[in-house]
Amino acid sequence: MAPKVLFLIEDGFEDLELFYPMYRLMEEGFEVVIASSSPNEKVGKYGYRIKPHKTFDDVKPEEYSALVIPGGKSPERVRINEKAVSITKHFVNENKVIAAICHGPQLLISAGAVKDKKLTCWIGIRDDVMAAGGIYEDRVVVVDGNLITSRMPSDLPAFCRELVEKLRHS
Amino acid sequence: MAPKVLFLIEDGFEDLELFYPMYRLMEEGFEVVIASSSPNEKVGKYGYRIKPHKTFDDVKPEEYSALVIPGGKSPERVRINEKAVSITKHFVNENKVIAAICHGPQLLISAGAVKDKKLTCWIGIRDDVMAAGGIYEDRVVVVDGNLITSRMPSDLPAFCRELVEKLRHS
Repeated sequence: MAPKVLFLIEDGFEDLELFYPMYRLMEEGFEVVIASSSPNEKVGKYGYRIKPHKTFDDVKPEEYSALVIPGGKSPERVRINEKAVSITKHFVNENKVIAAICHGPQLLISAGAVKDKKLTCWIGIRDDVMAAGGIYEDRVVVVDGNLITSRMPSDLPAFCRELVEKLRHS
Repeated sequence: MAPKVLFLIEDGFEDLELFYPMYRLMEEGFEVVIASSSPNEKVGKYGYRIKPHKTFDDVKPEEYSALVIPGGKSPERVRINEKAVSITKHFVNENKVIAAICHGPQLLISAGAVKDKKLTCWIGIRDDVMAAGGIYEDRVVVVDGNLITSRMPSDLPAFCRELVEKLRHS
């Protein structure tokens, strides 16, 4: 069965960091589900719009093989939602594939998922990642077990190469 | 040797229609060159910016395996540049891979490349495509020989699946 992949977003997501991985996984024939706090259309930093398929409350995390966390202003809004944090913890506890880019690791900090993990992120939050016990590396993509992280939109080719590769073999 | 792919753009390009195929081809390890009328940064419809690698005048079309034409307001600006039209004709005459999305086929009309070809495009220009002798089809992606066309950003997964497939075997 094709992998089913969950995205957690709010308004202010970095547009390419949502659409590139979403289209890329669809191109591969995988199922993609976008979840947010409400069913209303969400608007990216650059103005692209998307209607979530599900609310956080309707998500059954056990149905998914992987979690993708786009960056921008979205992760700071997602992390204040308890259900979204608890969904994230499911992927951490079950050692499922997690791919976070840019500000995405903010949600991983809230889920207690960065301690002793090698990861990267947007430079502006690297101190938070390190304060939470993460081992920060300034590289286009860092893979530590099932955790894949990148820094910014121009890292998307490397980020998605690793994500697709991981899911093809999962 | 990895395929080398040329993009022709001007201001007003549809942001995802440039960045999705560009990153996708880079993900595949292909070389991507963005050309425009001037070396200045170009701005997409949604505000993403990119600095062209080359001007139209500096492009040697014989160096490339394929041409990609993103949509938005860009093709209507590209087509008024004689050098850009002559570059496009090279790909047509040599029967190289051409991938055009949304308003991209406007440039193909200017290069005399749609007559008797099956193709799709943004609905707003389908009458121009038919008036120029093209056989319009309303599908996510239409492949006629080495010509790949799609209608809009949400067609990008199918569009790039065909483009990458074609270049892997070229």
